[in-house]
Amino acid sequence: MKNTTSQTVEIHKAKTSKIDQVDFENLTFGKIFTDHMFVCDYVDGKWQTPKITPYGPMSFDPSARVFHYGQAVFEGMKAYKDDNGDVFLFRPDENYNRINKSAERLAMPEFPEHYFFEGLTTLLQLDNDWIKPGYGNSLYIRPFVIATQPSVSASEANEYRFIIICSPAQAYYSGDVSVLIEEKYSRSANGGFGYAKAAGNYAGQFYPTKLAKEKGYQQIIWTDANTHEYLEEAGTMNVFFRIGDKLITAPVSDRILDGVTRKSLIALAEKQGYDIEVRPIKVEEIIAAAKNGNLNEIFGAGTAAVISPVKAFGYKGEHYELPKQDNPYAAHFKKALMDIQYNKAEDTFGWRYKV
Amino acid sequence: MKNTTSQTVEIHKAKTSKIDQVDFENLTFGKIFTDHMFVCDYVDGKWQTPKITPYGPMSFDPSARVFHYGQAVFEGMKAYKDDNGDVFLFRPDENYNRINKSAERLAMPEFPEHYFFEGLTTLLQLDNDWIKPGYGNSLYIRPFVIATQPSVSASEANEYRFIIICSPAQAYYSGDVSVLIEEKYSRSANGGFGYAKAAGNYAGQFYPTKLAKEKGYQQIIWTDANTHEYLEEAGTMNVFFRIGDKLITAPVSDRILDGVTRKSLIALAEKQGYDIEVRPIKVEEIIAAAKNGNLNEIFGAGTAAVISPVKAFGYKGEHYELPKQDNPYAAHFKKALMDIQYNKAEDTFGWRYKV
Repeated sequence: MKNTTSQTVEIHKAKTSKIDQVDFENLTFGKIFTDHMFVCDYVDGKWQTPKITPYGPMSFDPSARVFHYGQAVFEGMKAYKDDNGDVFLFRPDENYNRINKSAERLAMPEFPEHYFFEGLTTLLQLDNDWIKPGYGNSLYIRPFVIATQPSVSASEANEYRFIIICSPAQAYYSGDVSVLIEEKYSRSANGGFGYAKAAGNYAGQFYPTKLAKEKGYQQIIWTDANTHEYLEEAGTMNVFFRIGDKLITAPVSDRILDGVTRKSLIALAEKQGYDIEVRPIKVEEIIAAAKNGNLNEIFGAGTAAVISPVKAFGYKGEHYELPKQDNPYAAHFKKALMDIQYNKAEDTFGWRYKV
Repeated sequence: MKNTTSQTVEIHKAKTSKIDQVDFENLTFGKIFTDHMFVCDYVDGKWQTPKITPYGPMSFDPSARVFHYGQAVFEGMKAYKDDNGDVFLFRPDENYNRINKSAERLAMPEFPEHYFFEGLTTLLQLDNDWIKPGYGNSLYIRPFVIATQPSVSASEANEYRFIIICSPAQAYYSGDVSVLIEEKYSRSANGGFGYAKAAGNYAGQFYPTKLAKEKGYQQIIWTDANTHEYLEEAGTMNVFFRIGDKLITAPVSDRILDGVTRKSLIALAEKQGYDIEVRPIKVEEIIAAAKNGNLNEIFGAGTAAVISPVKAFGYKGEHYELPKQDNPYAAHFKKALMDIQYNKAEDTFGWRYKV
């Protein structure tokens, strides 16, 4: 993979840094942003000169299509700093490819590869001080594209803005979570765009999640919209089930996000000789395993949380506690992934990308 | 229904009007906006003092949740002016109720009724000159709510903005349209939010519609995501089929928008003694009727287009032309609805709302 330096990005540096005002020991996820952002506009059928400018508010016409028709896609990535001060991304080519796959499904233009990598690299070099070393610390990176064309006609826009903003992050979830297996609401349709990292896949989850929270669960595991018999994903994470010592996760489809953490974990598990199956999983299989004591673990996998262990789940009014494990797979894979991300382990897959 | 005058809306008038620069004979739908807009922010758990300000760009943090998670709902309404210069809305209570129903499904706060009606009325009084008399002329009104909270955490926001913008409009569609009955892609899932007028329901339609356009069709008629055997809606319109002299439309569901034009047409048809059925319609029923010569009409019903006649449709690679009618139902109901909207017919249902 090529590692570019800035030649085409127009840079406008912030006069002063906000970094001294930030308490890096008490960060709320996604709330504080670094000094700079990357911005590139699509006008007249092409992407214009990309810019890095001080982070700050942007002006939009109230008729900008993103406000009305949800034409917006994004990515979630992280930058990690090792003890030598070197900065790494984790499989950024996956994010680059996916944002364009998402964009295609939403009838949005492809973003050029060299702009993406040059923009990202230049931005991270400028805001390098915001990437704190230390296991678990990272800089969360949010590339996104929105339809900016001012006009409320319900069709794809001809003007867009590609933006990258960055937010210093600690761990996303504190502690293990309780999840509800959904029986009524759905995240995505067959033939829909659930596989895309698109804005419209998120807003619809908040209300069912609110109802789940009222029942004492923090997250939802979505089931298929047709039958609610098959387990799918958790909305911001893919989900893995450990029955006995077998690890199972649902196959990706047009309804399920092709998660980078998910596919990395599958590759790692296969390489390390774990028994892993990628196949449709029925809710009843999980319930049966929980009842006969074979359901050992459930965990989520995603960029923000890396691995998020589940301690209990609810289904049809029943509450199921998962047994405590002495050596949980969740912790094993979290460490294995993070060791690669933080340059503490050999990168046999070639996943690290040095900035 | 109460008809309020402004008591609580803070008004900041535009210094000059743009109206003289507008060619009202050549309007593109949704592109030109009036001199003023209505804006109300939700902060600290409540809606703040609503304002009317000059129409213009707004500033948002790049992390505003609407850009990332699609938390956005809207409405489409029209104001009509009769020959005496009186201005009318058509069933605005339906739009008020629906935007809150949409908001609830997206975990957004309810907007107060008196703010909605007072805001709308005051705005229309200020921009009265933009509502041109004449059958077919109207002012398209777009109320919408977006999540403004600056933070990329994937949950419902705690800050929102309610906005109303207005755009002078002529007819939405010029001429009859050809539509494609979709076999692969889907608009909405069972248990999803297809019934809500939410931003996320639109962006996913653009790519399949682009593919349909490449085949010579302007719009898609969506089928159910499970089987693609049942006809649903057209994305910006509900759809009616006339087989023989029977009019059929799909029932609303959690996948289908409860359209105001749709329900008004059903009420009118029932009152006027038409044979109308609201029931699931299989694609094969329409194909069979087309083949045996009984499929007389298909038309869409929605606020923007009122009634939009379909001249042909495609399905599984076959192209079906609809017969020309001497007295099409589409034209009859379009006139009947518009006569009520433009104060040319008796309003036996109490649908007109004088501003």
